[in-house]
Amino acid sequence: MPAEERTRNYAQQRARVDELSELGVIDRLWRLPGQMANVGIWSAPSTTDLHHALMSLPLWTYMTIDVEALATHPTVDGRATP
Amino acid sequence: MPAEERTRNYAQQRARVDELSELGVIDRLWRLPGQMANVGIWSAPSTTDLHHALMSLPLWTYMTIDVEALATHPTVDGRATP
Amino acid sequence: MPAEERTRNYAQQRARVDELSELGVIDRLWRLPGQMANVGIWSAPSTTDLHHALMSLPLWTYMTIDVEALATHPTVDGRATP
Amino acid sequence: MPAEERTRNYAQQRARVDELSELGVIDRLWRLPGQMANVGIWSAPSTTDLHHALMSLPLWTYMTIDVEALATHPTVDGRATP
Amino acid sequence: MPAEERTRNYAQQRARVDELSELGVIDRLWRLPGQMANVGIWSAPSTTDLHHALMSLPLWTYMTIDVEALATHPTVDGRATP
Amino acid sequence: MPAEERTRNYAQQRARVDELSELGVIDRLWRLPGQMANVGIWSAPSTTDLHHALMSLPLWTYMTIDVEALATHPTVDGRATP
Amino acid sequence: MPAEERTRNYAQQRARVDELSELGVIDRLWRLPGQMANVGIWSAPSTTDLHHALMSLPLWTYMTIDVEALATHPTVDGRATP
Amino acid sequence: MPAEERTRNYAQQRARVDELSELGVIDRLWRLPGQMANVGIWSAPSTTDLHHALMSLPLWTYMTIDVEALATHPTVDGRATP
Amino acid sequence: MPAEERTRNYAQQRARVDELSELGVIDRLWRLPGQMANVGIWSAPSTTDLHHALMSLPLWTYMTIDVEALATHPTVDGRATP
Amino acid sequence: MPAEERTRNYAQQRARVDELSELGVIDRLWRLPGQMANVGIWSAPSTTDLHHALMSLPLWTYMTIDVEALATHPTVDGRATP
Repeated sequence: MPAEERTRNYAQQRARVDELSELGVIDRLWRLPGQMANVGIWSAPSTTDLHHALMSLPLWTYMTIDVEALATHPTVDGRATP
Repeated sequence: MPAEERTRNYAQQRARVDELSELGVIDRLWRLPGQMANVGIWSAPSTTDLHHALMSLPLWTYMTIDVEALATHPTVDGRATP
Repeated sequence: MPAEERTRNYAQQRARVDELSELGVIDRLWRLPGQMANVGIWSAPSTTDLHHALMSLPLWTYMTIDVEALATHPTVDGRATP
Repeated sequence: MPAEERTRNYAQQRARVDELSELGVIDRLWRLPGQMANVGIWSAPSTTDLHHALMSLPLWTYMTIDVEALATHPTVDGRATP
Repeated sequence: MPAEERTRNYAQQRARVDELSELGVIDRLWRLPGQMANVGIWSAPSTTDLHHALMSLPLWTYMTIDVEALATHPTVDGRATP
Repeated sequence: MPAEERTRNYAQQRARVDELSELGVIDRLWRLPGQMANVGIWSAPSTTDLHHALMSLPLWTYMTIDVEALATHPTVDGRATP
Repeated sequence: MPAEERTRNYAQQRARVDELSELGVIDRLWRLPGQMANVGIWSAPSTTDLHHALMSLPLWTYMTIDVEALATHPTVDGRATP
Repeated sequence: MPAEERTRNYAQQRARVDELSELGVIDRLWRLPGQMANVGIWSAPSTTDLHHALMSLPLWTYMTIDVEALATHPTVDGRATP
Repeated sequence: MPAEERTRNYAQQRARVDELSELGVIDRLWRLPGQMANVGIWSAPSTTDLHHALMSLPLWTYMTIDVEALATHPTVDGRATP
Repeated sequence: MPAEERTRNYAQQRARVDELSELGVIDRLWRLPGQMANVGIWSAPSTTDLHHALMSLPLWTYMTIDVEALATHPTVDGRATP
């Protein structure tokens, strides 16, 4: 990717990440040390909405995205379910 | 597991699977050939509800459960998202 | 792949997917969230027929296809087999 | 497993394997060198029938069975499909 | 584990988790759907402190713990580092 | 690979596969559904002879070949060895 | 395994290993550092003969055996094959 | 990478590695035999600082970096924690 | 392992680790956070000597040991080899 | 790699392999059937010397090298160590 295009893409990606954070879709975001790779906590009404949010990232075609579904922990929602 | 207990547990498991199917939580269920293992299509309002449904199976403590979140395909919901 | 060729290929792929769905070869189709990757339930009289259906997809050379054979679940066909 | 029970189970397993071979369900069978493990070519009208044949083996509960679906090769059925 | 011992151990584990949450060592906690397994965001001054916190869980001997170190994301600390 | 070169290579590969089949070196050949990948039963006096047969395939440089050595099954050679 | 039985089994295993070495079936044998696990160079007229030699080890039921077939190197047999 | 650029990059990488060693960020460094790959002991006040140190390496974009967090061993800090 | 035996074994293990550290066989030792598992830098004249040192640990039969051979880094021995 | 360069490189590689064999650094060499890949028994005074020998191969930049350290087997050096 030519340097100029790279800078523009990264700026658009950063802007979209900020938008998604403000919308509460991105809850938390960390970097894996030594990598241009993230671990993130995303939140969406459904998996399909999550898919659309992920695919709205300008750089998604360069990204390898792996989704792990997470349930509320019993210590948080107080339910008796283990 | 003693034979009698096994039979009773399997019957309870079969009954709960039928209940979840009637509720639409279990959409489809297949067997992996040669194994007492299933591939299933489950549907729940949230991952937390899915967790409670899975943990309501009488035999869950003997089960290794791996969940893969699935999004609606663009050919189904017609959205432009790839 | 030049943009024009890409658009044409995707259109042909979408058309073939629709055809296979109408024929009942593709039973269900989902997207893996954040990926241009699918999970699908395909149905064919034999593995060889399935192979020909898969290879009839215009984009198969760009695809990594992994097939998991599924058997009817005892709760569906009522057989005593575990 | 007590020795006597083991001998009896192995004999039943051997008998069932012979039956399935005569029925053409087991086409070929090899041993992985140094292991009580097999590679086999099985043939059944459907994956469900294959499942029932596999689960009819007396020792199936002690077995880890992994099924790889195989399609007829173009050099065999002469079809143009790659 | 006898039922009574199990109940007591789970209660102690729950109490310790609450303590660690109040101390801010456990930041967030989720369940993996269908499993008695968690994903958690832990925070400690050093890896050694994290080790002591993890080993303070009453049930640690029954747990398989895998730690992934996470760095603050550039969008959070504003540093120019990718 | 230019189309013309591809067609010529595939024809040479098909011819060599036929030769090896007639020589009994290739015993059986299947396609993995949805892939230009095979599972084959090859037979050679030694691993070195097998190596030469595999490397005689015109397309071997484009192929990822994984060899699993197979022993005659006790039900076939009647030996008492498990 | 009771200590006495263990000592007897190890002695039988050691004796059989010596026999197989004298017969040239075991060519070379090494230990993986820190493990009761070996890497060995075995030589047999066929995979089936290798299977019988491996299964003749008194401790084979306690062993996990993985066989990698090796071909003579071109620098050794001088053939032009890569 | 053209030879000249490669030489310059390696020299910059070597200089930066020396700097980080002098700063105590790189504690120990070894080569994996037969590879241009290292195992290193790095030390930083936090994972975020470690991330910045790793990303300060001129060749980081060509590197696959995997970080394993290490805690002080009980034999070193004398704590009773296992 | 009964508690008393466990305490005695751990004490013997700790003593042997101290001995090996004093002999310079164990250079460095860390804990993997949340696990009774170590990463260690061991040094021995040969792999065979390393094997004997590892097998001299009282608890070796309960341990899963994986050895990664490390070479001196060019920045340390100044050799021109990459 | 242009054909001429390839032939020259392979010749240099073959010459270096012969040298290392004469020096006793390469003890044994086999081909993995169907691959331009080897399994070899190498012997060097230290892992660092092994590293330099491996990196002296003209084609090392095209090679994926994985080293498994091997210890002398108790049946060979007669030591009581398991």
